[in-house]
Amino acid sequence: MYEKEYLMLPGPTPVPPRVLRAMSEPLVNHRGPSFKKLIEEVTEGIQYVYQTKNDVLTLPSSGTGGLEAAIVNFLSPGDKVLALSIGAFGERFATIARNYGCIVEQIDYEWGTAANPDDVRTRLSADTKGEYKAVLVTHNETSTGVANDLKAISEARGNHPALLLVDSVSGLGVMDAKTDDWQLDVVVTAAQKGFMIPPGVAFVSVSPRAWKAYESSKAPKFYWDLGTAKKYLEKGQTSWTPPIPQYTALKEALKIFRDKGMDYIFTKQLYLRDITRAGVKAMGLKLVAADEVASAAVTAVWAPEGIEGKLINKKMREEYNVVVAGGQKKMENKAFRIGHLGYVQHVDMLVVIAALEMCLLDLGYPVELGKGVKAAQEVIMSRKGIL
Amino acid sequence: MYEKEYLMLPGPTPVPPRVLRAMSEPLVNHRGPSFKKLIEEVTEGIQYVYQTKNDVLTLPSSGTGGLEAAIVNFLSPGDKVLALSIGAFGERFATIARNYGCIVEQIDYEWGTAANPDDVRTRLSADTKGEYKAVLVTHNETSTGVANDLKAISEARGNHPALLLVDSVSGLGVMDAKTDDWQLDVVVTAAQKGFMIPPGVAFVSVSPRAWKAYESSKAPKFYWDLGTAKKYLEKGQTSWTPPIPQYTALKEALKIFRDKGMDYIFTKQLYLRDITRAGVKAMGLKLVAADEVASAAVTAVWAPEGIEGKLINKKMREEYNVVVAGGQKKMENKAFRIGHLGYVQHVDMLVVIAALEMCLLDLGYPVELGKGVKAAQEVIMSRKGIL
Repeated sequence: MYEKEYLMLPGPTPVPPRVLRAMSEPLVNHRGPSFKKLIEEVTEGIQYVYQTKNDVLTLPSSGTGGLEAAIVNFLSPGDKVLALSIGAFGERFATIARNYGCIVEQIDYEWGTAANPDDVRTRLSADTKGEYKAVLVTHNETSTGVANDLKAISEARGNHPALLLVDSVSGLGVMDAKTDDWQLDVVVTAAQKGFMIPPGVAFVSVSPRAWKAYESSKAPKFYWDLGTAKKYLEKGQTSWTPPIPQYTALKEALKIFRDKGMDYIFTKQLYLRDITRAGVKAMGLKLVAADEVASAAVTAVWAPEGIEGKLINKKMREEYNVVVAGGQKKMENKAFRIGHLGYVQHVDMLVVIAALEMCLLDLGYPVELGKGVKAAQEVIMSRKGIL
Repeated sequence: MYEKEYLMLPGPTPVPPRVLRAMSEPLVNHRGPSFKKLIEEVTEGIQYVYQTKNDVLTLPSSGTGGLEAAIVNFLSPGDKVLALSIGAFGERFATIARNYGCIVEQIDYEWGTAANPDDVRTRLSADTKGEYKAVLVTHNETSTGVANDLKAISEARGNHPALLLVDSVSGLGVMDAKTDDWQLDVVVTAAQKGFMIPPGVAFVSVSPRAWKAYESSKAPKFYWDLGTAKKYLEKGQTSWTPPIPQYTALKEALKIFRDKGMDYIFTKQLYLRDITRAGVKAMGLKLVAADEVASAAVTAVWAPEGIEGKLINKKMREEYNVVVAGGQKKMENKAFRIGHLGYVQHVDMLVVIAALEMCLLDLGYPVELGKGVKAAQEVIMSRKGIL
């Protein structure tokens, strides 16, 4: 490949060169002292991003593997769980629970909206017998670009003992998630999103309450057994052979998080989100998510009436080297999604907006060239110095 | 560094990742068979870009070293040379000749204009005794963004035996230069410009006529001795220790030239030039070079009345991570220069234009955000499919 790509997906994200370079370090024995030092350092760094003192286990898998681990370690067949689904990934989390024999009570919210904490409050407060074993929730719904209010959802449990299992695959490291303060029992994420390293590792945090549930979990497991993972971590290892270069990359990426601090990251992500939304809105396009619930990681946009979403993706990629994601499931071909996380900065978004303008004009949508860019520039200028 | 930089200099240029990666190959003995194979392959590739069958020697130096080699190998103290100077680098080439005792007749053209081939015709045709030993000319004047018409200047020599010594440091690999067809006796360039590899190597092509002049050259030389370089090249070596990673990088970069073909490169460069110029003009800024002589490698722009050029550079870099060059010599603080060569593509220019808009607005220049971008987008769209 000679041409440059602007990789504007909600993961994998662009990776900082220094992080890519860190992947070329010589391999080490994953059962030896060098890896022990590496995983200890990395785990501490992940805990920093998670804002937690809970155990955090790393698994050689994609994010979905992490979600499966969150189900099979803390639940048993026949357990009743409340699944809040606001999109394709909420659906997926519920499906995993269902596949392992849980009795899933799923609340489906209209795509583009967030889950209502009151629904959690109503169901759990009515459950005097404590039948709900867990609430499943997506932090950032990658398919719609909607962020749920984790804090409010957690609080809505009141004194009910249900665990809160959180899919934060595209949320952690992008949007605030105070694992300890907000009492998030199990939080799953993956390397190729907010952590901006290549795919290959998922992370799962486990609260003491969740470990208690682990003891009685009867779901079948071997690869995903977090008890095994914990025992290995105590020796400075992973249960199964880990993708070692991802760990050296992570070590480097975590230095950036430490250097910049989480506030910087969260502020930057909101900045990128607002630049993107302003540009898209100025073109007259409709956003899937309302401003109040808009994700800082990804912006989903409805394709204009009469224009196929896939055509937009194709044109963006082929003519402007800008790679955006397509619409998922029921949004397939009807929407596209702009990722703005990882190694991405304010002015990069201008390329995306400008390319989108050209693309749409070409497809017959009446857009005034430069208008979206102008709106995006205005956001950039109005918040100068915030970073 | 965490932030990304848009390196929009007239060299060093952004380098394709595959070329950067090629620099991490294990070092080889520069007096052994691996390097022989490498330099032979690389030399053939350079000849392809030069469009020449002449010898091409590679020197461990910057472009200026190549210029010095062009003087000291083919001229002697007391030799009369005609130097066509259209900017800082024309001036430099003449200065080198002067430092080695040549009698330099220098024609200074107004900065922003090109050399007039008629001046060469007039002087050389009047020189019936053949006193002029060489004509010095800059292909692409990096300080003003003006390209000279090498073909016309070469032809203007008529039957006069003066050598044509060409500084094509920022021209080769960007703009057409048919070394053989246009009878360019000595052509100098450097790695970090059109060849889009990191700095460290200069290239000099030598015509048979120039080799003849070499025989009688009395200028003192050792490091720059191209006769020595030629003897070493025949053994598959360089006279002095070469920067080996630049050679492996060059090998990779040359594959891109071969794959794409020179026409692709030249067309692309004109495209980038025209996108840039349209954007800058739409902001109401004045370009240093007129359209007819505008460089495909770099665009020099006058800072608006009352705004310091250096402030523009500083703001572009600090606030938008866009690195452009400053004005040189008499243009210092009065102009800035946008490089658009190397690993740069159409949509990258939109970032530069958008950043420039924001920058100027901030400095009090009345620019309408998005207007320059729109003009640039229009050029992009109007030439779709040319690459």
